[in-house]
Amino acid sequence: MPSTPSSTAPETNARTHVRLTMAWKIAAILALTLIIYFIPAPEGVDPRGMHMAGIFAGTILGLILQPLPTAAVALIGLAAAMITGTMDTKTEALQGFGNSTIWLIVAAFFIADGFLLTGLGRRIALLFVSLLGKSSLGLSYGMALTDLVLSPATPSNTARAGGVVYPIVKSLATVNDSHPSSDESRKRLGAYLSLSGVQVNTITSAMFVTAMAGNPLAVGFAADAGVEISWGTWALAAIVPGLVSLIVMPWFMSKIYRPGLTKTPDAPAHARAELKEIGPMNRGEWTMLATFVLLLILWVLGSSIGVDATAAAFVGVAILLVSKVLTWKDMAANGGAWSTLIFFSVLVGMATHLNTLGVIGWIGDEVAGLVGGMPWIAAFAVLSFVYFYVHYLFASNTAQIVAMYSVFLGAAIATGAPPLFAALALGFIGNLIGGLSHYASGPAGVIYGSGYVTTPEWFRVGFFASVVNILIWSLVGGGWMYVLGMWG
Amino acid sequence: MPSTPSSTAPETNARTHVRLTMAWKIAAILALTLIIYFIPAPEGVDPRGMHMAGIFAGTILGLILQPLPTAAVALIGLAAAMITGTMDTKTEALQGFGNSTIWLIVAAFFIADGFLLTGLGRRIALLFVSLLGKSSLGLSYGMALTDLVLSPATPSNTARAGGVVYPIVKSLATVNDSHPSSDESRKRLGAYLSLSGVQVNTITSAMFVTAMAGNPLAVGFAADAGVEISWGTWALAAIVPGLVSLIVMPWFMSKIYRPGLTKTPDAPAHARAELKEIGPMNRGEWTMLATFVLLLILWVLGSSIGVDATAAAFVGVAILLVSKVLTWKDMAANGGAWSTLIFFSVLVGMATHLNTLGVIGWIGDEVAGLVGGMPWIAAFAVLSFVYFYVHYLFASNTAQIVAMYSVFLGAAIATGAPPLFAALALGFIGNLIGGLSHYASGPAGVIYGSGYVTTPEWFRVGFFASVVNILIWSLVGGGWMYVLGMWG
Repeated sequence: MPSTPSSTAPETNARTHVRLTMAWKIAAILALTLIIYFIPAPEGVDPRGMHMAGIFAGTILGLILQPLPTAAVALIGLAAAMITGTMDTKTEALQGFGNSTIWLIVAAFFIADGFLLTGLGRRIALLFVSLLGKSSLGLSYGMALTDLVLSPATPSNTARAGGVVYPIVKSLATVNDSHPSSDESRKRLGAYLSLSGVQVNTITSAMFVTAMAGNPLAVGFAADAGVEISWGTWALAAIVPGLVSLIVMPWFMSKIYRPGLTKTPDAPAHARAELKEIGPMNRGEWTMLATFVLLLILWVLGSSIGVDATAAAFVGVAILLVSKVLTWKDMAANGGAWSTLIFFSVLVGMATHLNTLGVIGWIGDEVAGLVGGMPWIAAFAVLSFVYFYVHYLFASNTAQIVAMYSVFLGAAIATGAPPLFAALALGFIGNLIGGLSHYASGPAGVIYGSGYVTTPEWFRVGFFASVVNILIWSLVGGGWMYVLGMWG
Repeated sequence: MPSTPSSTAPETNARTHVRLTMAWKIAAILALTLIIYFIPAPEGVDPRGMHMAGIFAGTILGLILQPLPTAAVALIGLAAAMITGTMDTKTEALQGFGNSTIWLIVAAFFIADGFLLTGLGRRIALLFVSLLGKSSLGLSYGMALTDLVLSPATPSNTARAGGVVYPIVKSLATVNDSHPSSDESRKRLGAYLSLSGVQVNTITSAMFVTAMAGNPLAVGFAADAGVEISWGTWALAAIVPGLVSLIVMPWFMSKIYRPGLTKTPDAPAHARAELKEIGPMNRGEWTMLATFVLLLILWVLGSSIGVDATAAAFVGVAILLVSKVLTWKDMAANGGAWSTLIFFSVLVGMATHLNTLGVIGWIGDEVAGLVGGMPWIAAFAVLSFVYFYVHYLFASNTAQIVAMYSVFLGAAIATGAPPLFAALALGFIGNLIGGLSHYASGPAGVIYGSGYVTTPEWFRVGFFASVVNILIWSLVGGGWMYVLGMWG
């Protein structure tokens, strides 16, 4: 059997290749870490500062190269910080795990699970399809509304895109005979709905603090820089540019990435049939809906009635547990929530520590020096532009926010930008970047994986969409924040 | 078909019964919480103190009655503390999650998982059986040695008993035709090995800070009371009474709970055959072994070389992740670790807060007042006795440690007991109580569930074993600590 050796050879080669790549990845991470680790600390930076900067940079590079999953990389970085004494184990290394912002995110992961488990998320999507689904564009708006309704209580934008919206997109495409198998078939409907869904997801993520896991972190970093942003302030500033983008984007996508099928006359009837099949709302769905409405009320009124956003989220989890909509077993099996807890707590602890040691301030001053002398609007435009497109280097919105938000905000404030305006604008950008590439964010990864969209298409359409977003959010958004008096 | 209604009737009754019981449980928890919540705070206690005491007592009662699983009860208690403002969400409620002691426990859960996943734990057990297994007593000693070897790196005594030791006990019993089915059969071998295994487990748990999840908490509470206990100090104080108990207990159990089968001449050959079948140690097992030895060295030398126990544990996790002995997927699926994280962080946060608010000091003074006037040895004997047998009310060692350790230690110190001696003695008792009843601890629950031991047998044998433990640990242990100079 002469074919045996030749048939296994490529496999062996592939495995060697993976190992080599892995070795290269680890070598790159170690090299970056060690180089920065041994740079002498500049004036005003604690001697441990460059050690922390080295481990932090190595961890971020690890998140980009992914030799191991996110949470594993974070834990290894933490162990390095502990054993080298860069972070004191008792007082510094684990501070992120007691951060109330992170627990807001984790609690909201559990709450969002309730939308999936009870089927309420699916019901909402079907409802919008039955109302708006007569055309491809209508279907896309139906998905956008579903995403918008769920977004304030679903900080896992990946869960929202991958768990609720995408399954409906997939079934709509399948029913209309659009499959990833051939160009003609995938472009019929599935490709348009997929890519449009990703862009919509980045917009809804930008609209609420609790709509994307990185947003509360941005709020926390802003507070470290002396800028207080409440849940209500963020939502108010984002509502006008957000709604404008949500109206424009599906239409714009239908022009530059036109689906083969424009009319879908049967979709509403299909959705109604499915709604009929799942029957009336059950007790779990009603409980989920009531909890969701209560949370929205508490989050909106929060600062005026003195209820902390995290406390509200824990009350939501408690209600779902007592009513058995959610069980501890579901929670324990929610790997995404635990990964998020580990990853965020470690990185936020490191970033906070970097700040305390004076490293963030020093880098911020250096960056501000580069754009110094310009009027603040010009300086801020340059900073925003760089902050937006540097995301081609990142595989997660949150990784970029943790690595760069504080530095860019510090530089913007140093050049004279109004602090609240700058903090919110950079906060919004941290979401809108999520559709730039097929690896730009969790939702992008999920939807790319479905196979409806090719890589070149993604880069092209993602770039055009980013231009539209930048125009809307700077002109409409900037104008709206000016009206709100946030420029002063 | 007249049988249908009558066959469903008992089921309906059973469900109604469960609901009623559930309603009674919740009513009892709410009543206890509210009564304490509204008691006016005594002199020296912060006004929020009784609110915290009410929510804490309700949470502990919830852990005893278990209307929901442990972690769910803890989360609901935390939500109550947050929303009532009893614990500030940003500064107080989540402090437990950043506690380095808790992360020592969580990290050790992950490390212990490596013993199971690599099969190293099973190999060790088979090795001891092949050496000592010619009689029932020898098998019991083989299991005791396995448990002892694993205990320093396995703070989940339940995982140690249920995951490594018990499966071997079960297969030994089955091979020797001992099954839970009939009295004669179960008493042949399985019942003796099971109950002996539980008692051995409580002893090994008492020997190392890292051998039972509640021990690091006791160490933390002792530190709050001004008593520093290192990993080495605990191990040194426990080694002599621990080894004496480990030698005595299997023999004592063979006298009061005699197995029908005393000779097992084939067991060593069976173990050797199984060892042969699993082959030589693989790379995963070697990595696990090396990591384990490194951890032991770091834990033993810790305080003298300046390596924190938690930092060492994280390095262990990092090694297992890099070498792919453990994957993040294994870790995310380790429900026991996440439950432990939630449960401990919440309860330790509450207990710490109770201490800060002056409640623990006040109760300790009240208890000390009851035994005041006695010589400290007599007072301590009374306190220890109560601390030991109050465990008939608890379903978890850790729940009792969290609820009562600080109070009893405070009372003991107030009556003049040497602080280090009292802290260690109460620490040891927190483990030895785990075999008192079939619900006394995780290992007890696992092994009771196997069906080899009846409830009356358990109570009778558990009580006799507790008397033997008390005698050994107070006479031999007390004498040894006197020799070590810990009475001063």
